[in-house]
This record gives sequence, C-alpha cells and structure tokens, in this order.
Amino acid sequence: MAEPKENLQMEKIVSLCKRRGFVFQSSEIYGGINGFWDYGPLGAELKRNVKELWWNAMTRQREDVAGLEATIIMSPKIWEASGHVATFSDPMVDCKTCKGRFRADQTDEIPCPQKPSKCVNQCHGEKTEARAFNLMFQTYVGPTATAADIAYLRPETAQAIFAQFKNVLETSRQKVPFGIAQVGKAFRNEVTPRNFTFRSREFEQMELEFFIKPDEVIEAISGSVASVPETGHPGEPQPNWGWQAWHQYWVEERVRFYEGIGLSRETLGFHHQTPKELAHYARACTDILFKFPFSKKDAQGNVTGDELEGIAARSDFDLSQHQRYSGKPQHVFDDELRSAWNKLPKEKQDDLWRRYYENRKNYLTRSGVEADAAAKQATEDANGLAKGNYVPHVIEPSAGVDRLILALIANAYSEVVKTDDKGKSETTFVMKFHPRVAPIKVGVLPLLKNKPELVAKAIAVRDLLRPWMNVYYDDGGSIGKRYARQDEAGTPFCVTIDFDTLGEKPELLDTVTIRYRDDGKQERLKISELLAYLLSKIR
Amino acid sequence: MAEPKENLQMEKIVSLCKRRGFVFQSSEIYGGINGFWDYGPLGAELKRNVKELWWNAMTRQREDVAGLEATIIMSPKIWEASGHVATFSDPMVDCKTCKGRFRADQTDEIPCPQKPSKCVNQCHGEKTEARAFNLMFQTYVGPTATAADIAYLRPETAQAIFAQFKNVLETSRQKVPFGIAQVGKAFRNEVTPRNFTFRSREFEQMELEFFIKPDEVIEAISGSVASVPETGHPGEPQPNWGWQAWHQYWVEERVRFYEGIGLSRETLGFHHQTPKELAHYARACTDILFKFPFSKKDAQGNVTGDELEGIAARSDFDLSQHQRYSGKPQHVFDDELRSAWNKLPKEKQDDLWRRYYENRKNYLTRSGVEADAAAKQATEDANGLAKGNYVPHVIEPSAGVDRLILALIANAYSEVVKTDDKGKSETTFVMKFHPRVAPIKVGVLPLLKNKPELVAKAIAVRDLLRPWMNVYYDDGGSIGKRYARQDEAGTPFCVTIDFDTLGEKPELLDTVTIRYRDDGKQERLKISELLAYLLSKIR
Repeated sequence: MAEPKENLQMEKIVSLCKRRGFVFQSSEIYGGINGFWDYGPLGAELKRNVKELWWNAMTRQREDVAGLEATIIMSPKIWEASGHVATFSDPMVDCKTCKGRFRADQTDEIPCPQKPSKCVNQCHGEKTEARAFNLMFQTYVGPTATAADIAYLRPETAQAIFAQFKNVLETSRQKVPFGIAQVGKAFRNEVTPRNFTFRSREFEQMELEFFIKPDEVIEAISGSVASVPETGHPGEPQPNWGWQAWHQYWVEERVRFYEGIGLSRETLGFHHQTPKELAHYARACTDILFKFPFSKKDAQGNVTGDELEGIAARSDFDLSQHQRYSGKPQHVFDDELRSAWNKLPKEKQDDLWRRYYENRKNYLTRSGVEADAAAKQATEDANGLAKGNYVPHVIEPSAGVDRLILALIANAYSEVVKTDDKGKSETTFVMKFHPRVAPIKVGVLPLLKNKPELVAKAIAVRDLLRPWMNVYYDDGGSIGKRYARQDEAGTPFCVTIDFDTLGEKPELLDTVTIRYRDDGKQERLKISELLAYLLSKIR
Repeated sequence: MAEPKENLQMEKIVSLCKRRGFVFQSSEIYGGINGFWDYGPLGAELKRNVKELWWNAMTRQREDVAGLEATIIMSPKIWEASGHVATFSDPMVDCKTCKGRFRADQTDEIPCPQKPSKCVNQCHGEKTEARAFNLMFQTYVGPTATAADIAYLRPETAQAIFAQFKNVLETSRQKVPFGIAQVGKAFRNEVTPRNFTFRSREFEQMELEFFIKPDEVIEAISGSVASVPETGHPGEPQPNWGWQAWHQYWVEERVRFYEGIGLSRETLGFHHQTPKELAHYARACTDILFKFPFSKKDAQGNVTGDELEGIAARSDFDLSQHQRYSGKPQHVFDDELRSAWNKLPKEKQDDLWRRYYENRKNYLTRSGVEADAAAKQATEDANGLAKGNYVPHVIEPSAGVDRLILALIANAYSEVVKTDDKGKSETTFVMKFHPRVAPIKVGVLPLLKNKPELVAKAIAVRDLLRPWMNVYYDDGGSIGKRYARQDEAGTPFCVTIDFDTLGEKPELLDTVTIRYRDDGKQERLKISELLAYLLSKIR
C-alpha cells in the first residue's frame, strides 16, 4: 500500500521542526542525504533530556541495573553469533529495464530511483529474482581492506551488552536478576527510509537487557513461580518472579516512563506479538505504540499506532549464542540454586532437570546443532543445575530515541487561533512539552530592555536559576512576542521582571510574574521561592 | 622511536580499568578488536559526567552558544569541502617479503602483522613506494553500493557544525559572535592505535566552533581591535575583541574547565604550534596537554605531555570552503557593520577593503582557485563589507573525551600502603576523582546488615539523596571493606548509619558519619543538612 502523499499534520510538524531548530536534514546545504537527520539547538536539548531521564530512571534510580557504553564497531563475530550476518536482510529485486533496485515487497510504491520522473510509484520493467540484501553498513578496519578486515556498524546496541555480560557481572557486584543499560547510536541501511525521523538509517537506541533466572531455577529455589494478574503493574520485584512477571513488570515500568514525560496511555497503543510474529527463541514481545499522524487505521478504523519500544522475553538465546560462538562460558554460578537443589526431592530434581534439558535441546537444535550433539550439550547444561549453574534469560525493553522525540513533538504540537479586535484571526502554535523534557525550562524576561534596574534584576534571576536548569534570557521585543516565542519552543514557564519586582508596589518587592505556557495564566511569586517551585515542576 | 615496552604505571592503570569496570576491551570474548574500547559501569558514569559538565559549561551556562547533534554519516561532499577526502591520509608502504602494510614512518617500530613472532619491531623485506592511505572509514549508503553511494564515518564532529551553521543561525536568534557546540562519536582508521584509549579508532569529541567577526569588521565597527596581554585570561568578552583575544579567551576558559574537574595547571602542558606546524589557513593553535604516564620527555628531560585539546584559530577557511563546494552563501549580514561602514572615512574604508581583499584572495588561491578568478571573487567579497556582509572566522576548542577520561583516571590513581599490627604491609589504591566527575557521589552504608532499624534508616537516606546524585548503597562486609571498595571506585563521600543515628546517644539522633575518601577523616553531620552539603561539593 502506498504511503499517503498528503498528510497535513506531518507536514506542519516537519515544517516547524526546521523553522524552530528541532530537526534539520543532515547535510542540507549539499542536498541532504536520504535517511539522516540532525538535531538543532532545541532538538538537541530535547533529546538530551529524554536520554538523561531514561538513564536516570533505568540505572541511577535503581539498585539492580549497571550502565555500559560500548563501541559502534565491534568484532564481526558478534554479528555472526547474533544472526545478523546471516539473516538481517531485505529481499531485493533489480529492474532489467531501468536498472533500479527495489525491495521485493515495495516495487509498486517506490519511485524508480534511476528515472524518478518517468516511473514514479511503479517500475514496469521485468524484475530479477529476489536476493537478500543485508541491512548492516559494512566497512573495513585496518589498512589492508581484506575480507578478514570487514566490520559492521552495529544495527542495535543490545549485542554489546551480551558480549560484555561477564565483564559487567564480575566488576559490578550485581547478581541475577540484574540489568545492563546502554544508550547509543545504531545504523541500518534501510532501503526506504520514511516518515521523517521515524525510520532513518542512523538512529539512537536506549536498551536494557535485564537478566533473570530461568523459571526452572526459580522453582528450585522458591518452590514455585509466582503467578501474576494478566494485566496491570505486578508491583515491586519478588524473588519468585518468573519471566512472565518480569516481562509484565517491564512493560508497565516503561509505560509509566512514557506517562511521566507526557505521553498519556490514550496516546499509546499495544501490540502483543503473535506466535507467528515472534522470533523462534522469543517467548513474548509487547510493542508499545504511539499514535503518530502517519499511523494507519486497522480494519475497524482505529489508529493502532507505530512502535516506540518493544519489550521482548528472549529466553536464554542471546547469551547461549555468544557462548557457542566465542567458546567462553556465559553461565552464572548461583549459590542459592546449588543449596536449594540439594534439598529438593529426587522427583522434583528430575522434573526440573527434564524441563531445563528440553529447553536447552530445543534451543540448540533450532540453532542448527545436530541432534546427538544437542542432546549431549543439553545434558551437560542440565547437569549444571545441581552445581548452581545456568545461562540467564533476558527481558529486553528496547526503545528508539528518535521515534520518541518525534512522538513528543507530535504530542506537544497544538494550534491556537487568536482573533484580534478587528476580527482578524491568526493561527499560532504552542509546543506543550512536559516540563521534564522541555528543551528550555524557563524564559526570564525583563519587562523593558532599556531600564538598567530591570535588566540587572532579570540577570540576577537568570543567574539564580541557570545552574539548575536551561534558562532562556530574552529582552527582545514586546512581552507578548517573547511569550509567543517561548510557546513555540515549548518553554513551560516564563518569568517577567517588572517595576513591581523593583518595589514600585512595596508589597510586591522581589516578586515576579510567572506565566504558564499551556493556559497563559499568570501568578505572582516571590523570587526566594522561585527555584524550589521550578525544580519541583521540572524534575 | 619505539614505544617503551614496559610502563608500570600504565600497566597498573589498564589493569584497574578492567578490574573495576572502567574500561573493557571491545568484543573481548571474541579476542577483541584493535583500537576499540568499551566503558563499563564506572567508566560509563565517569564519561557521562564529563560530557554533561562540558555541555553545561559550554551551552546551558552561556548565552552565546547553541547546541547541535548531527549524524555520523553525512554527505560525502562535506569531506571533499573539508579536504579530508584529498588529504586525510597516512603514507603507507607494503613489504614485498612479508606482505605486511606499514606506516612509512613506522616500519622500524611496528611488529610485522603477518609474522609477528618472526620480525617484531623490524621487517627487513624490501618496501614499495609510499602510497596515501585515507584514514576515514568508508561505507555505502543505499542498496546499490556504487561509487555514488560511498559515504564516510565522520573523522571529526566539527564539519557538521559548519554544514549546519546557517540553519542554526536562522533558528536560534544568535548573532556573531556565537558558538555551536556538539558532543559525539568520530572515527579514524588509525594504522597503529596505541596507548590504551588515547589513540583509538572510535572515539568521542566535544567540539565548539565559535564564530567571530573578522578583525577588519571589528575595526570598522569599534575603530580598533582590542589589544590583550599575551598571557592570562582576558576577562569577559568585549565587542572590540579580535581573533587573538578570542583565541586566548578560549584557551583560558578551557584550562579553567580542566581545573574545575581536578586537573591542576601543574598536570597540564601547553604547545603553541609553530608556523610550520600550522595548517595554511590557521592563524594559531594552542594544544592543551596532559602529562600521561606514557608521555615522553623533551630534550631537557621534562615531560611535556600529550594532547587533550587543541584550540585553533581557523580564520574563515571552513565556512568559505562550504560556500565554495555547496554554492550556498555562508556569509552573515551584520547591521552594525553596514551602518559603521558608511560613516568611515574613505581612507579607512580603502584600507580595510584592501586587507579583507588580500585575506580572501590568499584563501582562494591557496585553495586552488586560479589567480584571475580569485581576484574577482575576493573583490566581490570585499565589496560585501559595505553591505554588512562577511564570512565569520572561527575559534575551535576541540577536546577528546576518551583522552580526558584517561587523564582523569591517571590523575586520580593513588596508591596507599597500609601496615597492619603484625607489620605486614598491603598496597591498596584510591581513585581521587574530583567530586564533580566521580562516577558515584556517595556510598550509603548501614553499619550492620541484620538490624532492620539501621537498614530502614539507611534506605531512607539513600532515597533522600538518590534523586539528586548517583548513590551506591552497600551493606555487604565490614565497614572497612566497604570504604575500601568506594575508595577504589573513586567515591568522594561515604555516609554511615549507625546506632547513634537511631538515637543511642540522644544528642546524635538523626546524624550520620560522613567519611572523606582522600584523607579518611570522619565527621558527624545532621541528615537534614546532608543533601545540601553534598550538592555543594558535587556541583
């Protein structure tokens, strides 16, 4: 199905992004480069705030998550282990007439790249058979550029976390269950980047890999795996949680995060991947969607939304793959398991052993290990339980930063129609960002530019606030114009220093007018209370 | 000269980086990948703190700098304009005997890559003529992988700033002089990565491009260019500053930044590039050096240090190049210049016109434009002055994040020899990070793990501090061991909750022991005063 050509709401958003310095086309003065976008001054602040809030919520505010910052270029063996070298590809066809190359499932919707004017939307030439086109960007490391020097730009940040799992475990004093968090760039050579920054070739991810005990281990230690209600937040983590409780916990934690930065539940959607959609090793995956202006309607006419984040229960696939490909053991030793195991009745041991064995054997055979070898390895793995050893399972909340920024911009965008005395109406817009993510937290405005006392006081207020938040000092133009400027930037508060601040009305000495972006209301506040008030709103 | 094989101090630093989770080798379980390093939990926090402090100091705490976050892959035309495609290369030779490829100036010091055991340090085979090897990593964007699809991983973040100069200018309400700041990854396919993280193939930069008026424009507006003392900080920026004052200002601002995060002036060195070292377009470049353990001695036996940051006065080269290559005007319009120009005596106009003309012509001819065309273009450019138009000059403070992290680690590393009652001595180490950059700001320790009242109180203290700083809660092992653990992590403060906190001595109710990392001294502090005290130290 062709993308709608006209989407007024998106056009407005793209236009304001450029005009107000949220997003620019990369390399614009050279005609741009398809699928790459830069963040201008306001966009860079917005993005920094979002990444900082995520990092804070995921690592610093928790006991059970450690951070990591790994390289974009890693050993190519990592992408063999992860399966990306073999299968991270789109089927492509070449056109024998126009020589263009198309995604096999999109020949009808993509303009012919060789002669865009001639055969927009449909190239009628005969097509070759589809061939796999790997979406990883490839380069060479070192001076010789031989096949042995091939490396890839990471197509996701997750694999670095798996590859460093043991190093983090050994240096951070964490024990399973615990997580490793990372924020960073990733790259996919998308055949057809689209929807502004939503699907781009260079993007940023915020990924948590949360390592948990396999259900058999929980059962050995706690007697049984906790059952949790099917919906809603399951509460504070418990020792007897299995993968389902942890999966649900992270879905709900992530929704709380989105709510906490201004995306209410009504703006979100959920997609629970069906068994057919799931990767063979995955047990569940819940996508958190946002209803973008370009999101399509389902058969019932409802907008379901497009993916902001996927929360996947990935079993022990990832660490197991790295164990097989690197030859380095990736299991953990769990003292609790070892002592619990020895106290279990033989029947229970046998039951857990069998189930663990089956899971391991399934993984191994599905990963291409021959039946005999798989059975032998699975036996060894299951025998490890008695020694307290297992390969952790993982729950992966994986969010796209750029998509979230676009969602926040789309969500914040509001138009206001103002009609003046003469009945002439004008449409302006206000960016209603949550104060936590707003690029600028407060505008500080002296009523007049040419009154040194006002300016000096305004600068004192600016300097009071600036160590704690991003302040925009503005003395240019009428107060109304300056408010409008901050409304467009999404600044939630403006503080005006006027003659009352200087004591023209003695009872108002050292007070300021604070003006609220969303309703335009104004209040009087003491300067001595300003910092604490603003901090309570923006944090 | 060969790198010293043995450097005990560096060995200790590399070892602690791995052991305490500051830095890991990228892809270590796969044998690593040469020139790539990951930051573990403590390293990731340290790096985040440094980047955040830089961003804060350079953008949020200033009126005159806007932020940018551009892509790593940009239009390849940017690297033609910048000169990187043509000249960003090392001369390489191939060995006809061992088939290895060497940097032409390092054949004597690099192990033969093909037979490292056989000809370490010297390959005796006949070498080919030297050929240029471009240090940019190359890839293809889009599915066809033709020559037209070649793109590069940016070898520096600076060029994105120049390419987006006009967009930022038009959307940010900034006027020259102003700067654009960016933090981000860059990539150089170094032939011989070395000195741990100091010279790696993937690294991060913090770059400011600060755009200023050409001296001729200052002279037209202010009558003359301010003369500044040759050393020391020239103070708050003034309208009549020329490039020399701005250059000196930024050198001194950057030194203050380093001092503010614990690198005293004694640990730093300075290198003023000689006319021979300077790029043809550069007017000055001052390198700020740090005395690393691997830094070499000069002829007088003094350690001079290795580069942390270069502060270059780059004239109007960069914007001029992009103007020529993109065909998009990169000049600014300056109202002040236009009105000042018209009031100048004809003589003065002619003098300034001539000097501006000469500078422009020099730039053009040195950049390969033929004499006639250069003269014509320079005439047009100089005629622009009367209309208020000029291409801004730039001062570029460009810092390497990874080098700075390594400097902070080397600077913080201190050994302490403790001798116990039996005369047995043990060497431990303390990481004396400045509290502003320390990965963990405070350890919160209940005296005993098995006293619920102590634990509850300790958790209350943790939760009081955690929204404001990175807190490490630790209840494992003796207090001495826990202090030692935080000393190794570089945590400047530890807070212990003991029975006095609970009121065993009533006058000490709700007080805690605060223990200082650097001298081990302890004091008693009220919990109600703790947050404000710690904030005053870490900010």
